[in-house]
Amino acid sequence: MKKIIYLLCIIFPLAATAQQEDSVLLRKLSTEIMWNSPCYEKLRTLTKTIGHRISGSPEAARAVQWGKTAMEEAGADSVWLQPVEVPLWVRGEEKLGFQWPGSKNFSNVPMVSLGNTEGTNGEVLEAPVICVENLEAFSKLSIEAVAGKIVFFNYKFRQDIINTFEGYGDAVKYRWVALNDAAKKNAVGVIIRSVGTNVDDTPHTGSSRYEEGVKHIPAVAVGSVTADALAEACGKGTVKAQLTSQCAMKGSVLSYNVIGEIRGSEKPDAYILAGGHLDSWDVGEGAHDDGAGCVQSIEIIRAFKTLGIQPRHSIRVVLFMNEENGLKGGQAYADSAMQRGESHIMALESDAGGFSPRGIGLKMPEAQKHIIQRWVSLFLPYGVYDFSQEEGGADISPLQKQGVPVAGLIPDSQRYFELHHSEKDVFEAVNHRELKLGAWTMAAFIYLVDRHF
Amino acid sequence: MKKIIYLLCIIFPLAATAQQEDSVLLRKLSTEIMWNSPCYEKLRTLTKTIGHRISGSPEAARAVQWGKTAMEEAGADSVWLQPVEVPLWVRGEEKLGFQWPGSKNFSNVPMVSLGNTEGTNGEVLEAPVICVENLEAFSKLSIEAVAGKIVFFNYKFRQDIINTFEGYGDAVKYRWVALNDAAKKNAVGVIIRSVGTNVDDTPHTGSSRYEEGVKHIPAVAVGSVTADALAEACGKGTVKAQLTSQCAMKGSVLSYNVIGEIRGSEKPDAYILAGGHLDSWDVGEGAHDDGAGCVQSIEIIRAFKTLGIQPRHSIRVVLFMNEENGLKGGQAYADSAMQRGESHIMALESDAGGFSPRGIGLKMPEAQKHIIQRWVSLFLPYGVYDFSQEEGGADISPLQKQGVPVAGLIPDSQRYFELHHSEKDVFEAVNHRELKLGAWTMAAFIYLVDRHF
Repeated sequence: MKKIIYLLCIIFPLAATAQQEDSVLLRKLSTEIMWNSPCYEKLRTLTKTIGHRISGSPEAARAVQWGKTAMEEAGADSVWLQPVEVPLWVRGEEKLGFQWPGSKNFSNVPMVSLGNTEGTNGEVLEAPVICVENLEAFSKLSIEAVAGKIVFFNYKFRQDIINTFEGYGDAVKYRWVALNDAAKKNAVGVIIRSVGTNVDDTPHTGSSRYEEGVKHIPAVAVGSVTADALAEACGKGTVKAQLTSQCAMKGSVLSYNVIGEIRGSEKPDAYILAGGHLDSWDVGEGAHDDGAGCVQSIEIIRAFKTLGIQPRHSIRVVLFMNEENGLKGGQAYADSAMQRGESHIMALESDAGGFSPRGIGLKMPEAQKHIIQRWVSLFLPYGVYDFSQEEGGADISPLQKQGVPVAGLIPDSQRYFELHHSEKDVFEAVNHRELKLGAWTMAAFIYLVDRHF
Repeated sequence: MKKIIYLLCIIFPLAATAQQEDSVLLRKLSTEIMWNSPCYEKLRTLTKTIGHRISGSPEAARAVQWGKTAMEEAGADSVWLQPVEVPLWVRGEEKLGFQWPGSKNFSNVPMVSLGNTEGTNGEVLEAPVICVENLEAFSKLSIEAVAGKIVFFNYKFRQDIINTFEGYGDAVKYRWVALNDAAKKNAVGVIIRSVGTNVDDTPHTGSSRYEEGVKHIPAVAVGSVTADALAEACGKGTVKAQLTSQCAMKGSVLSYNVIGEIRGSEKPDAYILAGGHLDSWDVGEGAHDDGAGCVQSIEIIRAFKTLGIQPRHSIRVVLFMNEENGLKGGQAYADSAMQRGESHIMALESDAGGFSPRGIGLKMPEAQKHIIQRWVSLFLPYGVYDFSQEEGGADISPLQKQGVPVAGLIPDSQRYFELHHSEKDVFEAVNHRELKLGAWTMAAFIYLVDRHF
């Protein structure tokens, strides 16, 4: 019904002239971006020259310098680094093998430890595996049944949920909760079926967290093919696992958010923010997550400067640090804004992949949503039609808690959780037109907010 | 304005009960298809076991058998082969080298001859290259300037056109027209910048045709990187090309359309058709073009049979032969339908890639469009929103000429012309969820047509 209401909004058109002017400007923006944007090449540099860049790593430090240079090249009036103390989590070497029923040897499988977890300190952890399909089934097991075992949670990503971000919301609790539930029943380790839509054997990492007072047992993820084989084997006899891993938290490191700004001509002290996050997981290349969001955000500055668009408000592009395993960058930015009394009239994040854009999610009061939803006819020619979802972004959630209206780019979601936090998230998985069209959607939105808010 | 009109249609809802029943059935279809459809694995077999399959080739013959078996496995009430005489075009070996200004040697570049053209018969064709940006510039050249030369048409795919099928429509004339225009001015060969959106060096083939009475000169395509280098070199001095190719038409071969049918319970003599084409170009694997359309169409039968959906009309799934370089299969089917007096109430084709679906194009009288456009709220939860475009499909265009209402699946278009007719059109470029969601869109549409037409 919500969708119907917002679609109806287009029958109450803006004043025809303003609408026409906006339409012409948006076309100029798209022509410039689709022909001339360097964002795809910038992403190539970030992913292929620097590669993955977990918070606190040397690669993350190089990415900060890359971001600063990229902002300057884009023509920002000013560029600076905002200090952020970030946690340092290091993976090290890791392997997981199974002794299948009837076999004497252990066979290694593709796996990744979950982020922020503690490994086996390089020792071999060997234990029998018990398989459960979900948390509810696990809750029925006794402590005796679980103690000393490695628990395998075989919960499947819901392929029938069309919006994969909803499917992710459903499945990701196995990454956050399972290891704590298992530790409370004296399990010695946890294996989860990866939180991904894959029908291949790609394992996915991602943040986890030990609850206060819970034993820090190792937790790893395996791909769908291994998960299916493991579930089947557990039904046939005893499966033993050998896990060797070194991952551990290593204190904290000084890092930075990268900020670039175009100063506003009329209301320079009111800010419109656009951003993505610069850090990534330590597998793949962090191309869709979230190199894409970074280069798209930087493109707003370049396109505005190239076309001579002088915003009324100040436009800030922020490349946040540490979205993946701490959100320290988003928090540091919001804390600073609060301390300085900076007024943000809108914050937009791109952190859902560099795929073909379909809409912009809105988390803000209804009155502001209605202003934006009247722009839908301006976006329809570009295939951007969905302004009905409640979406923002993790990095701007601390701003949202301060009352700032937030928005999130909504790309097509079908491919994202096949590569998210995995070795498949590489530059080659990004299409240059999809990436640029997402950049246009952000630039168009920022332009309209600047003009009509 | 059209888009606004069809969106408005959703405020005149269907009778609530019927709408609710349809919604429940469509959800059952999506749950079945997204969890259980074998269409992705069927596509893997077609592309990886058989590979590309140009009309008349041994691979095309194997694909016909694959299609027949796949229809049977899907549970069709009957499956048969419809004979089609198809042209056989054979590529053979081919290479293109340039002697850049100042160089003594020829350097080979990635290239493909255009489909249906005649090569150099294995001889070396050496000639100077002249570069033109477009047909208009070429039209101003004298016969003397062109005679004995190889003409390079450097027309760029319009990146600023958001719907890439429109961009294709704009650029593809260089594949059809350029060689004829050049031959009329006594050029000895033609090179075109590939009709693709690539920023890499992938060359794209595709159909061409010599006009009646025009000399059959060789015509080839190069990728964007080579095209840029060639244009730059032509500005600096004389570039010579050496082309050696063997491509030629080799008469015709007996082949087949593959047809599977579910017999209707109420109006068995009224047909609803869904299909794609089985042949492909002889590069890549024909995964998106159009293995995807074939496996999606077959999935309609499987999903209906699995869920016990008994259609009122007869549902025919057709895997057409020879879409790429002759359209003989589409013509044969329409001719047969006409001869037998078969009544088709709708024909739907999927031949725009196995990407995330966005809509269904409609080529039919307004009254019928309006019936369909009232279904938009049923499709919106699946991200399918666009019923405003005039699209059908090449294979069903002969039916359309007989007055049959036709429709075409509209997937996201951003990636398609990066791989279309090239070595990049492989199984790995297809995402299983996008493919299945397209299959669902087709199945849902066929279901609703069966119920409401």
